[in-house]
Parts: sequence; structure tokens; C-alpha cells
Amino acid sequence: MQYHPENDEQYQGLTVNSGVERLPDVNPYRRRVSRREYTVSEYVDGILAGNKVILSQAVTMIESSLPRHQQMAAEIVEKCLPHAGRSVRWGITGVPGAGKSTSIEAFGMELLRRGRKLAVLAIDPSSERSRGSILGDKTRMEQLSVQPDAFIRPSPSGGSLGGVARKTRETIVLCEAAGYDTIFVETVGVGQSETAVHSMVDFFLLIQIAGAGDELQGIKRGIMEMSDGIAINKADGDNLQRARLAAAHYRNALLLFPMPESGVRPQVLTYSALTSDGINEVLKMVEDHISLCRENGSFETRRRRQDKYWMQETIDQSLRNHFYQNQRIESMMETKQLQVYNSEITAFRAAQDLLDAYFDSLSKRQINHPED
Amino acid sequence: MQYHPENDEQYQGLTVNSGVERLPDVNPYRRRVSRREYTVSEYVDGILAGNKVILSQAVTMIESSLPRHQQMAAEIVEKCLPHAGRSVRWGITGVPGAGKSTSIEAFGMELLRRGRKLAVLAIDPSSERSRGSILGDKTRMEQLSVQPDAFIRPSPSGGSLGGVARKTRETIVLCEAAGYDTIFVETVGVGQSETAVHSMVDFFLLIQIAGAGDELQGIKRGIMEMSDGIAINKADGDNLQRARLAAAHYRNALLLFPMPESGVRPQVLTYSALTSDGINEVLKMVEDHISLCRENGSFETRRRRQDKYWMQETIDQSLRNHFYQNQRIESMMETKQLQVYNSEITAFRAAQDLLDAYFDSLSKRQINHPED
Repeated sequence: MQYHPENDEQYQGLTVNSGVERLPDVNPYRRRVSRREYTVSEYVDGILAGNKVILSQAVTMIESSLPRHQQMAAEIVEKCLPHAGRSVRWGITGVPGAGKSTSIEAFGMELLRRGRKLAVLAIDPSSERSRGSILGDKTRMEQLSVQPDAFIRPSPSGGSLGGVARKTRETIVLCEAAGYDTIFVETVGVGQSETAVHSMVDFFLLIQIAGAGDELQGIKRGIMEMSDGIAINKADGDNLQRARLAAAHYRNALLLFPMPESGVRPQVLTYSALTSDGINEVLKMVEDHISLCRENGSFETRRRRQDKYWMQETIDQSLRNHFYQNQRIESMMETKQLQVYNSEITAFRAAQDLLDAYFDSLSKRQINHPED
Repeated sequence: MQYHPENDEQYQGLTVNSGVERLPDVNPYRRRVSRREYTVSEYVDGILAGNKVILSQAVTMIESSLPRHQQMAAEIVEKCLPHAGRSVRWGITGVPGAGKSTSIEAFGMELLRRGRKLAVLAIDPSSERSRGSILGDKTRMEQLSVQPDAFIRPSPSGGSLGGVARKTRETIVLCEAAGYDTIFVETVGVGQSETAVHSMVDFFLLIQIAGAGDELQGIKRGIMEMSDGIAINKADGDNLQRARLAAAHYRNALLLFPMPESGVRPQVLTYSALTSDGINEVLKMVEDHISLCRENGSFETRRRRQDKYWMQETIDQSLRNHFYQNQRIESMMETKQLQVYNSEITAFRAAQDLLDAYFDSLSKRQINHPED
């Protein structure tokens, strides 16, 4: 979906019906031109050369469920890894209606004006897509999406949050290798995904709108404490005062929280993606925060911790999946849960019984169910 | 340590040197009377009869690391399980200095006056004990500790948080079977243990002291959002105004949080454990909260979720331990972490390599390292 012929020279030759707005529903002359497959090193070269189309296709590989693709994707990501890491990664969240999409356009266009290269990714497990993932709805990013120096990629569809997060994180590697010096990872502020995003970015921005209490019910518990900064959108016209009041509320609330691990206190600003008032201030807030974190070393520490986090997350998740998908476990689970429910056995005994069965089945695996 | 002969008839016969304040350092006539071991059913009967001494000994079994004891303890807990659950479980946390111990005495003495039976437990992994676990320091609970209807038990010492939490949760079962209708589980508000406590209580009370911002640095992120109510202690004398101001701060802050799953908004009260002002209001806050939760069904839902939580926690933790203690993993881990650190491989690839080695070693286990 991300393919823009106008941004890509090499590709023109391959394009069918170039310039045709929309293919006729029936086109007797149409022939599928089988796209030539790149080798891993061709992918890597293309990415390092900043070729958007090849980047897109590589990301598609990352998102593919075909083992062959996954294998190639893994090699591509690893070859790109040494060239990655040199960007500032923003996480951007906020409830639907906070105006994330217009904000991302406003922030993004200003960054491009300053000569930056911007990649906008999203991480929302399919379960949350419907709840306002802006990137699913491309028309709302029309300004950015046609910019040569912007790369926009919707959230990988389907799969568990863990899977989506992994794909997004690997996509960051490719984008950085392709020379994008600013990465936006966007998420809807209503689910589990904030923690995942928070664990892959350098600055986590919470976008809010004026109002307190009931109006904010949508936002997830704990999210305020994850944010490195809060920006209150729609501070324009009649809404200006309410926005400023909300900002004051948030500043008070943040006072009750401890100093974040970054060692830099989160700021609360107001802005308007509509009038662009305050956009520069928000960008400055992020820049200042990043440079302070680089100085006090927390920037590097945070990225190291994130690597460790993802390694452990992947391990833990795999261990859980392997356990809960075990045949013996699946057959026992319901009974055990019922026994706990009826106070016949403790939760701990139930867990122990299941674990015994699990490891027993594993150690017998080779004899009973040989695996290749 | 919990033994109080004065509360126990059956036991008098077994007591040596009853009434002697302290044994002489050297006592030629002293003979160790080997304490007869109770059977599981004797333990259960004793507990159901509300015998404090037997309860104490059963809890000691829960805390014992001897397999024989653990086996017995598990049976005792399971036999008590059907008689458990009929209590209101408070979680009480707050930073050291907030006055948790005096507060627990104040709340507890008032509850006893109202004819309740109170068990006070603690859950603090040894790492945190030093940081102010009141129950380690018995002298500070002297009022409660001599009450016939109060049962006080320090936190199980040593072990992981998971282990300590399990022991505390099983102790709750025994206490409830012994007829204690109110359980306090106390923890220091500085560590990981709040989540554990929050996952075993019906009402999670956060005790605070006057002051905002820097004074509260000690408190763990996210803890405010876990609490079902906040009570600000030391609202007396010159401190009264500051306490009320702090309460206002917290009320504002809580406005920014979503409605808790309980469906009941947390309240913020001020009180003084010293003068007892506001103690009744705090008790009323908890009672009202509990009855509202019973009405809207969240009370039952929460306990069911807690059972599930502990089953999954136990499983996940065991899976992790089993993985990280695996010989092959231990030998590979450092290398893999280094490779990730040097951006040679992604965190995901490192995880995958380790997982492959792990499951490979498990499936070969019977051949290579037979287990009994």
C-alpha cells in the first residue's frame, strides 16, 4: 500500500499501466508482471541506498508469515543492524479523538522542513485497529504520505501484540539503516500496546485533549507515568483556556509521581495541530529531553534495557506459548481451572500439577512424539 | 515466635517452665520435651477450632523449606480451602515513615472493639525487609499482638517475591479457616510487592503523609492507580492543613485516572493514627467500598481473577526459572547478551537461539541426563 511510483526511479520500468488512476474492473490485456525477487544482499544494498520501494518490500517480508520470507527477513534485519540505531525514536499515543494523525502530520512536516527524514510506523494489534489507529486510514496522512523524505507504514495486521511489536521493532532497524533519522511509532492509547511502544522508543509522548476526569476515561492506567512528556492538543479558539487548565491539572498530577528513570521530569505543553501554535515548542521539548538524556547517560541505558527487555519478552512469551499449546496442558487446563474455581485445590497446586505434566511430556517427547 | 500460652488451654500441659520469664542460661535440669508432631487432620481440626498455636505451627510449615513440611502444608491448605474465603482482605501499603504500624494498630484495635477477628500478615521479600517492614519489628505492634482475637505474623523471610507471596496467600487461607474475618496484608510501598499484594486483597489502601512532589519520590510508580483508597496519616496539630492540602492534590490526581475495574472510585481521606481522628471514616470507606463491590459483582470477579492470576504467575515463574537455570542456557546467555549489546544479532534472534538450545536439551534430557 506504501508504493509511490513518483518517488522511485528504478521502479518505473516495472510499473504496469503507470499513470492509470484506476484499473478497469475487467482488463483483457492485463498481465501480472511477476516481480523479480531480490536477494538478501540486494535488499540490504537497496535499503542502505535509501530505496523506499525495496524498504517497503523488506518490511513486507518481516510481516510475512511464510517461513522462507521470515528467514530472509531475519538475515536482512541482521545485516542492517550495524547501520541502525542512529535515530531519535518517538512513541506517540493518545485516545482516539485526541488528534494523533493531524498532530503527526504537523510534527512531521515541520521536521521535514528542518531537513530530517521521518519514518512513521504504528503498533496496534488487530484487536485495537478499529479503535482509531490512524495509519490504517491513509487518507488522513495525505500531506506526509507524498513527501519523498517520509516513509509511512501502517501497523502490521493481525497477530499477537508480541508479534506486532517484534515486527515494528525490526522495521525500525530497517528504516534507520535506510537513513531515517526520526522514527514515529504511533499507538492507540487504549490498550496494552503502550508498554510495547514505550519499550522501543527514546521519547514517549502522550497526546491529550482538554478536559479532565470523565473525558479521560479512555486512557489506560499507568500511561501517564510512562510518558516522557504530555502535549495537550486543540489549544485553539474557545478551547484555549480549557486546554491550559488541563495542562495545569496534569502538571499537578505529575508532581505526585517520582522522578522518571530518565532523570528528566516530563513537561506538559499545549499546542494546536490545526493552527500549528506550539508545534515548535513540542519539538523543542523532545529535543531538550533527548539531549539531557544523552548527557546523563540515560539515553544509552534505556536502549540497552530495551534490548534486554525484548530478549526476555521473546523468551517468556515463547515459553508460555509452548506451555499453553502443549496437548497435555490443553486437555488438563479446564479441569484444573474448575477445581480452583470450586476451591477444591489452590491456584498453586493447579499450576504445579500442570507443570509436572508439561515437563513430563517434554522429557518423553523424543520417545512418544519424535520431532524433526 | 507467635506463641502466647495465655491464649491457649490445650497447650498448657505441654509447656516447660510455664511462667518462667526467661530460662537460666545454664539449667542442668532442663530436658527438651520433644514436641509431638500433629497429623494433617489434627492441624486442620486445630485450625478450624481457631487454635492460634496450631495455626502458627501450620504457617511455619508453609514457610518451611523441608519437602516433608511442604507436602503436609499443601494438604493442610487444601483441606482448609473450603472453609476459607469468608473474610475481607485489606492490602495496606505506604512508604516507610507513613506510619503504617501505628495505623494498623489503630485500625485493628477499632475493628476488634467491633467484635471482628483480625489477622495481620506481611509480604516483603527479604530485599525490602530492611526498608521498614513494620512486622519484622514486633515491639511496634505491642497493643495488637497481645489481643486474643488478633493474629500477627511477620513476613516470611527470604525467598523470591513469588515465593513469599505464595506463602502469604496460603497463610490467608489458614487464617480464614481459623475464623479471622479481617485480614491485613501489609507491604512497604517501595518495591515490587504491591502488585503481589494487590492481587490477593479485596481493598488496597495506600497510606500517605502530607506533602507532594519530592516528598513522595519514595513511592512506586503506578501504585496510586492500584489503590482502592488513599488515607493520609498524621492529619493532626500543625500538620492538619498540609494533610488536607495533600488530600486535595490526590483527589485532583485521581480525577485523571480512569474508573477502576471495581467500578468504585477511590476516595481520599485524612486521619491521625496518633489522635484516632478519622479512623472510623477510613473503616467506613473500606466497608462502603466492599459492599458496593459486592453489589456490582466486582468483588467476586476480582477474587476469581486473582485465582487465575496466581495460577498463571506460578506457571510463568516456574517456566522462567526452569529456563534460566538450564545448564546450556547459563553457558550461552552471556555470549548472546554480548552479541546483542554489540548489535551483531537482534534481541529476537538471541532469544530464538537460546530457546532452540533449551528445548533441544529438554527433549534429549531422558537420554543425556536421566531424571528420577
